[in-house]
Amino acid sequence: MTRLQATAIAHSNIAFVKYWGNRDPLLRLPYNDSLSMNLSAATTTTTVAFAEDLSTDRLTIDGEKHIGPALDRVSRQLDLVRLRAGLRLRATVQSRNSFPMGTGIASSASGFAALTMAAAQAAGLSLSEAELSALARRGSGSAARSIPGGYVLWHAGTADSDSFAESVFPADHWDLRDIVAIVSRRHKGLGSTDGHGAAEGSPLFRGRLASVAETLATVRGALASRDMARFGAAIEAEALNLHAIAMTGRPPALYWSPATVAVMHQVQAWRAEGLAVWFTLDAGPNVHLICEGQDAAAVEGGLRNLEFVEGILANRVAGAAHLAPTLVV
Amino acid sequence: MTRLQATAIAHSNIAFVKYWGNRDPLLRLPYNDSLSMNLSAATTTTTVAFAEDLSTDRLTIDGEKHIGPALDRVSRQLDLVRLRAGLRLRATVQSRNSFPMGTGIASSASGFAALTMAAAQAAGLSLSEAELSALARRGSGSAARSIPGGYVLWHAGTADSDSFAESVFPADHWDLRDIVAIVSRRHKGLGSTDGHGAAEGSPLFRGRLASVAETLATVRGALASRDMARFGAAIEAEALNLHAIAMTGRPPALYWSPATVAVMHQVQAWRAEGLAVWFTLDAGPNVHLICEGQDAAAVEGGLRNLEFVEGILANRVAGAAHLAPTLVV
Repeated sequence: MTRLQATAIAHSNIAFVKYWGNRDPLLRLPYNDSLSMNLSAATTTTTVAFAEDLSTDRLTIDGEKHIGPALDRVSRQLDLVRLRAGLRLRATVQSRNSFPMGTGIASSASGFAALTMAAAQAAGLSLSEAELSALARRGSGSAARSIPGGYVLWHAGTADSDSFAESVFPADHWDLRDIVAIVSRRHKGLGSTDGHGAAEGSPLFRGRLASVAETLATVRGALASRDMARFGAAIEAEALNLHAIAMTGRPPALYWSPATVAVMHQVQAWRAEGLAVWFTLDAGPNVHLICEGQDAAAVEGGLRNLEFVEGILANRVAGAAHLAPTLVV
Repeated sequence: MTRLQATAIAHSNIAFVKYWGNRDPLLRLPYNDSLSMNLSAATTTTTVAFAEDLSTDRLTIDGEKHIGPALDRVSRQLDLVRLRAGLRLRATVQSRNSFPMGTGIASSASGFAALTMAAAQAAGLSLSEAELSALARRGSGSAARSIPGGYVLWHAGTADSDSFAESVFPADHWDLRDIVAIVSRRHKGLGSTDGHGAAEGSPLFRGRLASVAETLATVRGALASRDMARFGAAIEAEALNLHAIAMTGRPPALYWSPATVAVMHQVQAWRAEGLAVWFTLDAGPNVHLICEGQDAAAVEGGLRNLEFVEGILANRVAGAAHLAPTLVV
């Protein structure tokens, strides 16, 4: 029996300049460049094993067997790897997340990054980081950003090959923290794949696209100079911009829960009191509180006093996706 | 002693197509036409008495004496009336609201409509409804819509004289209800006069302006044909569009409280269960639930079961601003 197996670990990421809307939905070519940091406490570990005795791909996430749309999406990603490797074998995919799925922490980002890296390795492919990033993008756009390490820029590009992410600063460039206030563990109503499609229906979407290059320049510049106040103001405005597009999309998507708004107001109140903390959000209800390392304890402590916060996930800037010793499963 | 006194009663209004942003802030000429209904349970009653023995204007709202910015704004409005009437006398202004101020129910709309009508009458002016509406607009844009009755369209116009509101359907055209879920009686952080200025800073504002004529045509058409589903979907999208602009303005304004979001989700849940109710919001935290008369009891009953709703204001469509027998005060 042929044994083609590998395990990869990838970190989720939080975008400071968001990815929202696809110029090419099939290839997941985005309208704009985006910029993120990898999250140390939010990882997916995935083992892919191609085997001769399988008639279909099999998928297990957090110990639960998946069929239907989730498996189909994984199989399509494996097909890209199989096509490139000239491989016909089906695979078992076993995946574990360190965080709840579908709550605004991008499980699809770390998930498809780990899947792609593990599958490519198991299939015997030798791909560059940029090639892996572009390939991960096909499974989930933001997965492109979970391949490189530290602070990551995803070039929107113009085609399959030049739409990939790369590190712009290493993890130790700046000790930013992302303290996630988890306010809901429920799976969100509208998945982000659908959300990207709805974005173009927003009458406000063109305005977003016209301004996002300026946002990126501001955020990247503030990141380079470690200017927290400038960085924070820009990323908070950008997060509200994303949700403004989402709530005016067709169909409209209101990802926020009451507790989301409560945390957002609390962050602004803390800031008025002198605590240097800002928020960002992905397409979900949880609020990501961004601060420097020196303020992380105060932010975490503050969140622990809020009854409507169900949990906290404290992240440092994490490194690149990487291979792990293969688990015998 | 000269006695020039009059009392007027005006209804607040809720806009289905919103007024947000001024092409000319001084004249309060808006960027776009807006459309509203008058609210039966939200009124301001104002008595204006010009008198020779006054050295300054005096203002009392809900029994409380006001000086500073609130009085200055009223005095500027009285100046317009005095200028037109050739009158130099100062006035006492006594005003009562039937609802809490600054909570998203437009107290400035009914307030400046009643003030303008009472002051014009007390000063002996004889103005048409359009002239009164244009004059009320100078005090507060949405006050222009509280002069005519029923369903009201404010023509953006191009100058002081042609930017006024008129009734497009009488109050009995359609028995719509506005059941306001009051979730906060606190005065909002950013007043709507400031909000209008911030709107132009939103990178999304041009997109709003480009689409608002289509929104107006949809809403007006659905109003004409009493098509609740079409009407409701359009006004809910328009309300989210307004708040998308507000939250991306400079400075950004997040008018929602946690309970605002809870009510919005509840409305969508009720609708999924078959209750024909939609929401709209002004620049504040309270949620206006819009339904037909036949569904009003169910909507009110539902709201009464929500612990986070502090109060309910149930409105029918109301008539025009009108003069009242002068109260001897």
